Amino acid sequence: MNKHTREEELMRPEVTTGPLRASSKVYTSPQGHDDVLVPMREIELSDPDEPTFRVYDTSGPYTDPDAAIDVEKGLAPLRAAWIAERGGMEEYKGRDIKPEDNGNVSGKRLARDFPSKRKPLRGLDGHPVTQMEFARAGIVTREMVYIAHRENLGRSQAREEAAARVADGESFGADIPEFITPEFVRDEVARGRAIIPANINHPEIEPMIIGRNFLVKVNANIGNSAVSSSVEEEVEKMVWATRWGTDTVMDLSTGRNIHNTREWILRNSPVPIGTVPMYQALEKCDGDPVKLTWELYRDTLIEQAEQGVDYFTIHAGVRLKYIHLTAERVTGIVSRGGSIMAKWCLHHHRESFLYEHFADICDICRQYDVSFSLGDGLRPGSQADANDAAQFAELETLGELTKIAWDKGCQVMIEGPGHVPLHKIKVNVEKQLEICGEAPFYTLGPLVTDIAPGYDHITSGIGAAMIGWFGTAMLCYVTPKEHLGLPNRDDVKVGVITYKISAHAADLAKGHPAAQARDDALSRARFDFRWEDQFNLGLDPDTAVQYHDETLPKDAHKVAHFCSMCGPKFCSMKITQDVRDYAAKLNDQEAWSAEGATGTEKEIQEGMAQMSVKFQAMGDQVYVDAEEAKAEAVKASNETLKGAPAAE
Amino acid sequence: MNKHTREEELMRPEVTTGPLRASSKVYTSPQGHDDVLVPMREIELSDPDEPTFRVYDTSGPYTDPDAAIDVEKGLAPLRAAWIAERGGMEEYKGRDIKPEDNGNVSGKRLARDFPSKRKPLRGLDGHPVTQMEFARAGIVTREMVYIAHRENLGRSQAREEAAARVADGESFGADIPEFITPEFVRDEVARGRAIIPANINHPEIEPMIIGRNFLVKVNANIGNSAVSSSVEEEVEKMVWATRWGTDTVMDLSTGRNIHNTREWILRNSPVPIGTVPMYQALEKCDGDPVKLTWELYRDTLIEQAEQGVDYFTIHAGVRLKYIHLTAERVTGIVSRGGSIMAKWCLHHHRESFLYEHFADICDICRQYDVSFSLGDGLRPGSQADANDAAQFAELETLGELTKIAWDKGCQVMIEGPGHVPLHKIKVNVEKQLEICGEAPFYTLGPLVTDIAPGYDHITSGIGAAMIGWFGTAMLCYVTPKEHLGLPNRDDVKVGVITYKISAHAADLAKGHPAAQARDDALSRARFDFRWEDQFNLGLDPDTAVQYHDETLPKDAHKVAHFCSMCGPKFCSMKITQDVRDYAAKLNDQEAWSAEGATGTEKEIQEGMAQMSVKFQAMGDQVYVDAEEAKAEAVKASNETLKGAPAAE
Repeated sequence: MNKHTREEELMRPEVTTGPLRASSKVYTSPQGHDDVLVPMREIELSDPDEPTFRVYDTSGPYTDPDAAIDVEKGLAPLRAAWIAERGGMEEYKGRDIKPEDNGNVSGKRLARDFPSKRKPLRGLDGHPVTQMEFARAGIVTREMVYIAHRENLGRSQAREEAAARVADGESFGADIPEFITPEFVRDEVARGRAIIPANINHPEIEPMIIGRNFLVKVNANIGNSAVSSSVEEEVEKMVWATRWGTDTVMDLSTGRNIHNTREWILRNSPVPIGTVPMYQALEKCDGDPVKLTWELYRDTLIEQAEQGVDYFTIHAGVRLKYIHLTAERVTGIVSRGGSIMAKWCLHHHRESFLYEHFADICDICRQYDVSFSLGDGLRPGSQADANDAAQFAELETLGELTKIAWDKGCQVMIEGPGHVPLHKIKVNVEKQLEICGEAPFYTLGPLVTDIAPGYDHITSGIGAAMIGWFGTAMLCYVTPKEHLGLPNRDDVKVGVITYKISAHAADLAKGHPAAQARDDALSRARFDFRWEDQFNLGLDPDTAVQYHDETLPKDAHKVAHFCSMCGPKFCSMKITQDVRDYAAKLNDQEAWSAEGATGTEKEIQEGMAQMSVKFQAMGDQVYVDAEEAKAEAVKASNETLKGAPAAE
Repeated sequence: MNKHTREEELMRPEVTTGPLRASSKVYTSPQGHDDVLVPMREIELSDPDEPTFRVYDTSGPYTDPDAAIDVEKGLAPLRAAWIAERGGMEEYKGRDIKPEDNGNVSGKRLARDFPSKRKPLRGLDGHPVTQMEFARAGIVTREMVYIAHRENLGRSQAREEAAARVADGESFGADIPEFITPEFVRDEVARGRAIIPANINHPEIEPMIIGRNFLVKVNANIGNSAVSSSVEEEVEKMVWATRWGTDTVMDLSTGRNIHNTREWILRNSPVPIGTVPMYQALEKCDGDPVKLTWELYRDTLIEQAEQGVDYFTIHAGVRLKYIHLTAERVTGIVSRGGSIMAKWCLHHHRESFLYEHFADICDICRQYDVSFSLGDGLRPGSQADANDAAQFAELETLGELTKIAWDKGCQVMIEGPGHVPLHKIKVNVEKQLEICGEAPFYTLGPLVTDIAPGYDHITSGIGAAMIGWFGTAMLCYVTPKEHLGLPNRDDVKVGVITYKISAHAADLAKGHPAAQARDDALSRARFDFRWEDQFNLGLDPDTAVQYHDETLPKDAHKVAHFCSMCGPKFCSMKITQDVRDYAAKLNDQEAWSAEGATGTEKEIQEGMAQMSVKFQAMGDQVYVDAEEAKAEAVKASNETLKGAPAAE
């Protein structure tokens, strides 16, 4: 019964598929848009009084058991019809792939190219192409409709509950509506306060938005490097990162096979893909920055735009005149793109060609609707260098470039630090908003201390939560391996989950109308000892289950009305049910507390004694009841667990 | 040659000993106090221009290879002579150990008691006993001298460098001096703004201080529970937690053998030990809160005070009249101590005996100098319940109790939440400082979201960094197992490291004069590619090395002038050395940048070309140099690492 395995099958990249625990994929359409199907993840809960809980879902078809996943074919081009319908663009032959696109490797060392290729599209002059151009023309695109529905997740419910809740949160000037309309999305994009990274050559993506008045987003970096990794690993890293909630992925590959690796990633990615084109340009001139030319860089931009890259990090703010400002720094220039340009500028003693050709770059990006992520090449690499003259000088230039890009109809976000102590974070957001006309801020961390290599997902997750709260629209993750090595699968997951925490904490603090619903649902599950629901509502159900099972491995414990901290005898969560019953009974009583009572000392004492009897009759047996009801679970636990520690 | 092993040796608890990587223990004395020896950890660096780096060391003699560690004997009673010298106290027989102190277990189930016991001491009336009483009497104790020296770590150096640095940080009213004198310590203790938890029956500790104007401290909870764990594990957990930097340890044991386990911990602990006496009291009445009595509780306080517990968490703020305020909460009362008292109050419909007997409790604590940690029994257990009426009502009572304790000469800190969204954290500190007369705040987290079980060290580490910055004096750690299970050894370490990050981030942001020195030293090591120094200056060198070696396992890479992200060909850190050389040369030149230059366009172009030639001659070959110098390392790496990803 040996199945014959063909060679292609062995080569086929394997990716993680299947739903998360207790989850299913649902697709819903906004009213009047039956052709727009927005996916969400629905978590089933064990309590019949709790409705299933829907969460924002970045994972694409990979978590849909009904979807046919074939990495060789790529994802369905969801947006192709929308793009075609809008018109104003042409299909053309496209640039020929050159040997240097893949580092001049051949034969066995050349990564297999993606099997089938579409011809690229590009916008025509005089027609709107970018989401910003459509938005300014007053046109609501399907992407905007999709995004409004997607961002509203849970918000209609929140709106119903709003009457019962006091408006809360401190948003530092962000203006998050109770309900998001497609028109609101259009308006935010038109004024540059939000971007929809969506290259017309990347129709596979499920549209998403990055802006201060929307959910805070997360980016995960992947990429093969000169040192290690393969195509399969990179595609799987992308799928894996979206599974845990990353909203975009940056492919920071260096070394060989960059072009082919990227093609596989793009064709299979449900989220926007960003790159730093300079990395590939550098590979094309043997890693020597001084050999870089505008022509070579320009060619690389077109190469990547034709493939469908959704946003480009461009370090056009690293101007010759700023470079000496970094000389006295503790850690100099730590941005790779920034230091490449610094090297080039110093060697040629010329102004950056990225800065000088910025308008030309805009013209290219507009044709494909590639969004800008204006890179902070002079960002600080240590606490000591935070918020210094070099950093803020560059920010001024990024503000200038933002206006040029906007004039050209291009979408823009601005990259930010880096390494910043807690007390210097807020001014970063304030300056960025002011200087860059509220263009979305996209920050790396920041790390709030430099003393914990191995834990920089945490040092930076702290800074990310704060800067997200203050108004950053997207947070670029940092993994535990930062500064030490290349992230593996586990590191990518831990990085994404950490940043989902930061992003959600920021949403909560900004007063996002729907954010707290998940905290509340999980807290109710916790309070009710619905263990499975607590796991499944969390960001990482698998880890939660695993941790639980290390202490209380039996299935019986997942319905046990106690937790491992306090054990079966007593539990603080349980006792509160007494309080609740008691308070309910007392609601219509007069003198509820001794202090509230009037009368003589004797009368008070008598009243208290009376209350005491009443309570004893009412709810005092709640432990006994609970133990009887769950007798089996408790018994099972006592049998499996070490009782007393026996030293002798 | 088989060594005969006696049974006791097999039973002997094993603890982790030996120095951290590249570290040695040094002892120094403050001027004029040769009898006060303060331990510090000194990290050796590989660069001869970098002095060895000293860090605050909580690990006690366990990391000193010259110290004889015998868990059966306990640590040397460092403070015994100081305490005796002060007088004003008596040695007495002490309370007999009762079967219920260990949960009425006997025979094999009874944990072996600590072999040798001292008679307890207690203070006499009319004599100062507590550090606060001495402070108020104008007496500087040896503990204060010790602490001043310990807290000054690195500060004399910082003072020298202060001229070169602009004063920085935002301390929200904290007043951290440039240099700490014993008199400053005395003054802070006298006015209740700091505490020195140091029971006269715990002479083994290395004195430390908790207060807003000192380094932010960290506490780790350990404790066997009804469900699992043993004496050996608990002693090792304490040693392990102090190894990674916890400043105090709380023993939250429940179940059996509480007394004996605690004795082992106390006799072997170099850090102050805190407890929640209610947990043991509850065990003494079969886990039934309604059976609790003042007499039983009082007896437990004395039992623990005689053993040497340094601070007691006492939930005396959970008053009858507040309990109904929790009825509408999402997660009711989640503090174990709080819910025990709520249950008791409701059952008997009486005011809390802890509240009514608070002055009596103070009299006991004063006799032994047990500090108070006034528990927040009504703290929120979810984002939904943060900062509610119940929480702040209790805080008012804690303020009232603080004044009573101070009047009795007792040291006090105040416990705080729990679960709080980012935007509601600051007011917690503001209210606490105001209501409790600036008594030190000691907070659990807070968790800034509820949606990440399995990652609550991170959700809470974010809140801890912020609340530490705002003025919290000690941060109680949360491990990854919070809400799910009991922390194991790895969880304890991750929890401690995470909280050291939060505490240090807070110190940095408060503008602590010496805090940034470690960030700077590590950043310099990073910039110079001194890998070993980067690892060793970090909070967890072992993990840093392990992560590094996963990508670049060869020893050669630890001296390689590149990191795994960018590979050997190009590195952003490296290029900055060019910039630095360049800027240095240009310092005495006039027109350094094009924009700064005056003259005709032609003159500028000529000047730039000249500069370019100069730079090329000077530093352009830096990569080649580096590669030549490290040729062997690079070659080794290329051989061991996958070059191009080969899909075919």
